Amino acid sequence: MDKFISADKKVVFEKKMDSLQQNLHRMGGLVEEAIARAVQALKTQNLDLAKAVIEGDDAVDRLELEIDQKCLELIATQQPMAKDLRRVATLFKMISDLERMADHATDIAKITLRIGHEPLIKPLVDIPRMAQLTQKMVKQALDAYVLEDIELALAVGRDDDEVDHLHGQIFRELLTIMMENPRTITQATNLLFVSRWLERISDHATNIAEKVIFLVTGEIKLLNE
Amino acid sequence: MDKFISADKKVVFEKKMDSLQQNLHRMGGLVEEAIARAVQALKTQNLDLAKAVIEGDDAVDRLELEIDQKCLELIATQQPMAKDLRRVATLFKMISDLERMADHATDIAKITLRIGHEPLIKPLVDIPRMAQLTQKMVKQALDAYVLEDIELALAVGRDDDEVDHLHGQIFRELLTIMMENPRTITQATNLLFVSRWLERISDHATNIAEKVIFLVTGEIKLLNE
Repeated sequence: MDKFISADKKVVFEKKMDSLQQNLHRMGGLVEEAIARAVQALKTQNLDLAKAVIEGDDAVDRLELEIDQKCLELIATQQPMAKDLRRVATLFKMISDLERMADHATDIAKITLRIGHEPLIKPLVDIPRMAQLTQKMVKQALDAYVLEDIELALAVGRDDDEVDHLHGQIFRELLTIMMENPRTITQATNLLFVSRWLERISDHATNIAEKVIFLVTGEIKLLNE
Repeated sequence: MDKFISADKKVVFEKKMDSLQQNLHRMGGLVEEAIARAVQALKTQNLDLAKAVIEGDDAVDRLELEIDQKCLELIATQQPMAKDLRRVATLFKMISDLERMADHATDIAKITLRIGHEPLIKPLVDIPRMAQLTQKMVKQALDAYVLEDIELALAVGRDDDEVDHLHGQIFRELLTIMMENPRTITQATNLLFVSRWLERISDHATNIAEKVIFLVTGEIKLLNE
């Protein structure tokens, strides 16, 4: 193939990849916001905010479909090969993880509605801390992809360990509270699930980081063992 | 393009798709087996079986990577267009759902190890029923894809409603048991999570069914509202 045509094709491809990555960041931003708002709603028992998180999930779902469609168009029209094809394919899979994180933010918002205005059995400290960590992980996992930065991807794995540790701590604490006072059982169980959803969000960010490492190095490195 | 070359290309593509679908069924079989064995291990408190489920997860992860690779090779070498490209892309995404289901079977096996040989707080009836339903859903979702059968995909959505209903029932029952006897709290919480993981497995099967409907009709139909 003529070298100039080939170079032109690469320019078109990279332009389209840029646009896809902008969409990816937009989706990532929505997911970070959903996590932050869901936990804020729980902490302040703001039911309107919880409802807004649930309603906002549609926008994430639509964006996923839109990005899916763009990935397929890019493959069909540009027919990228080798590494470029793997870059598109990685992005195509990553957005499923992002969509699932937004679902879990919605799960947390639904629990907030169930708890309603009933007084919280304990001040929430570790759960907001977990939420902050997961937001940071989402951002870093996407940056790791765009920059193909292995160090950033590994940092996501380290934060996942910290989230797992916090989840274990919350789990033990809530079990103790329930045993001491069975009237707390319903709410404590709900809070246990909140912690579990945050831990799952962290797992999804870690999945993305693993995909980035595979894309860049061709090696499978499991970060959340 | 010469019609005969084009027809030849289609034959090669379909042959490769057949092989991919066989891999998909193999992965689906492993996932169904993991769910069945995980719940069997829990019910009979067979810790060796639970360990086998955890160890078996590697095979599913490897198969996912292998299928991923084959999808990308098929796209790169055959450059399928339109519907054929969407068929490959759908399969590519479906296997992430399958892999996640196997993870949840592993989650259940880990809970079984935590419960160990401590007597069960209740005979397990609804949880095995949920497991049977989810296994059927996995099979039907994959058949719906291969046969492009909308009716089968819709049946998966109906079973998902049944699983959600069972999950709600188990949740209420376990909360009651915990409140009546706080000494059951730790195990009841563990069983709550088993039910939740089965419900998530059911959601993943439903995701696959939704993707099949989108592939066949081009319409987005949300089955698990």
